[in-house]
Amino acid sequence: MALTERTLIERYFKNCGARRADVPLGVGDDAALLDTPPGMQLVAAMDTMVSGNHFLPHFPAASIGHRALAVNLSDIAAMGAVPAWALLALTLPKADETWLEGFASGLGALAQKHNVALVGGDTTAGPLCITVQVLGHAPRPPAMLRSGGRAGHLLFVSGTPGDAAAGLALELGQLTGASPNADAYLRQRFHFPTPRVELGQKLREYASACIDVSDGLLGDAGKLAEASGCGIAIAHEQLPVSEALASAAGDARARELTLTGGEGYELCFAVAPENVERMTRELPPQEWGYAPIGVLREAPGTVVTREGTVMDFSHSGWDHFSN
Amino acid sequence: MALTERTLIERYFKNCGARRADVPLGVGDDAALLDTPPGMQLVAAMDTMVSGNHFLPHFPAASIGHRALAVNLSDIAAMGAVPAWALLALTLPKADETWLEGFASGLGALAQKHNVALVGGDTTAGPLCITVQVLGHAPRPPAMLRSGGRAGHLLFVSGTPGDAAAGLALELGQLTGASPNADAYLRQRFHFPTPRVELGQKLREYASACIDVSDGLLGDAGKLAEASGCGIAIAHEQLPVSEALASAAGDARARELTLTGGEGYELCFAVAPENVERMTRELPPQEWGYAPIGVLREAPGTVVTREGTVMDFSHSGWDHFSN
Repeated sequence: MALTERTLIERYFKNCGARRADVPLGVGDDAALLDTPPGMQLVAAMDTMVSGNHFLPHFPAASIGHRALAVNLSDIAAMGAVPAWALLALTLPKADETWLEGFASGLGALAQKHNVALVGGDTTAGPLCITVQVLGHAPRPPAMLRSGGRAGHLLFVSGTPGDAAAGLALELGQLTGASPNADAYLRQRFHFPTPRVELGQKLREYASACIDVSDGLLGDAGKLAEASGCGIAIAHEQLPVSEALASAAGDARARELTLTGGEGYELCFAVAPENVERMTRELPPQEWGYAPIGVLREAPGTVVTREGTVMDFSHSGWDHFSN
Repeated sequence: MALTERTLIERYFKNCGARRADVPLGVGDDAALLDTPPGMQLVAAMDTMVSGNHFLPHFPAASIGHRALAVNLSDIAAMGAVPAWALLALTLPKADETWLEGFASGLGALAQKHNVALVGGDTTAGPLCITVQVLGHAPRPPAMLRSGGRAGHLLFVSGTPGDAAAGLALELGQLTGASPNADAYLRQRFHFPTPRVELGQKLREYASACIDVSDGLLGDAGKLAEASGCGIAIAHEQLPVSEALASAAGDARARELTLTGGEGYELCFAVAPENVERMTRELPPQEWGYAPIGVLREAPGTVVTREGTVMDFSHSGWDHFSN
């Protein structure tokens, strides 16, 4: 193919993302040089997306670029941190210019929105595989680890986490019959999820623990609870479901997708009871888009309740190495 | 398969590498938290190794782990920086425990040797692909960019850069007839190359420009020269060739492998004439393992000379997206 690695980097990635004054040396040398702000902790996340696993090859390249960055921004958001810099490792079967243009535009637009500079990385030939690494900053001491929850803390989730999973189900033909509007909305939520970066930063003031919901709410909330030495009860009737999702999937499947679907990059967080009133006043849920879904409790394990009764629910989110 | 993503991480990677006091939060949350030292610049490198491209699936897993980290440490070394933290994105077709043990031991041993903590990453299912990201520190202002060379500066290279390429050629059956000792030595240099981390830090005092030789000396030295706005003349008779390489490949092929072979992770660096005497006194070449190979010059482009005459040499190092 005609496109060299160097041309590829210069054309698509050298000026992708935000320009920042704290990048004395970005793409083009052996490593990037970065100026860290004094008094802050560095926050580092890294996630991979593999063709056939996290996306299908025919999905829009802009979506793949967007999501490869979004999954990392969501991790940064779950730490209450401010993202700053990204590195991209892009393994490509061939240097398809149309695909690269789409990919870089999707990644670049999201990077610019969050003032993230693309400062380095690597391009290699091989099966399509994308690893993005994002660095950010957070004040000391760390807030909102997974382990900060305690029994009695209320559990919340941002957005409507089933939408992205429904969008994927539509893409895969596993969900059909949605109205054109619902169909378009749900696919959009899958292809261009919104990492809750600003919400994550705000939540430092109120939340005791936070986790990014990328593998399913039930499984990820369970991880938060376990790291906090608690169990968790999620109220089925409180799960936030969008109108589009309810209309496309029906109530029961909508709630199942909300519990077990991944890919939405929402935040699940615990808040001590004494902070809830102040949080809901200062961060109005309607404006910031979050809802209460349950409570941390002494008894270990995760249960889903309906009208106070424990439901039988065997799904537990996605695990990449067991099925 | 029986091994979950979580067990895999806890068993093989949670305690892989060095322990460092500047990692308040490592593997296990959404992102790692890291304490950066005041007054230093952060240095970030990221490289990918893909099965079938950078290694073959049957190569020793410990070598694959070692090399995935070494390629990044070499980038950090080329900036004269001190490595501190690594993140690992590991995409695996299946969670083979024997392979994982070997991989983690190879990566972990090299990480411990250089006091690098493995602080995070991702594991996914897919075609074997490994991305490692290394973060380090360097004093301000930056020294040894690729662009710092000037016409008249002398060019040096560490080690004997053809050895690793010869080791790979032996593995691929493209080189045969080496003595058992030479064969073992050269394969070892390919499978377990030595990133020149300590030399890189020392060179900050003397070198005007530096690059990591991972794609071939001729091509990488050319990149240094071009970034410095110069050309380069490499003296064929000065190229450092190990006894093992000379005996296994013969002189002509040994020098060709030295010029065009990659994978050795040596440093190529430029030094202003007035610094050469002090450098060779304070960093004796025999002890530190480097040799003069040529000079930066006004005329653009790269030439190889033999006894003062320009040789015809059309190879120019490896480019992942053109051939």
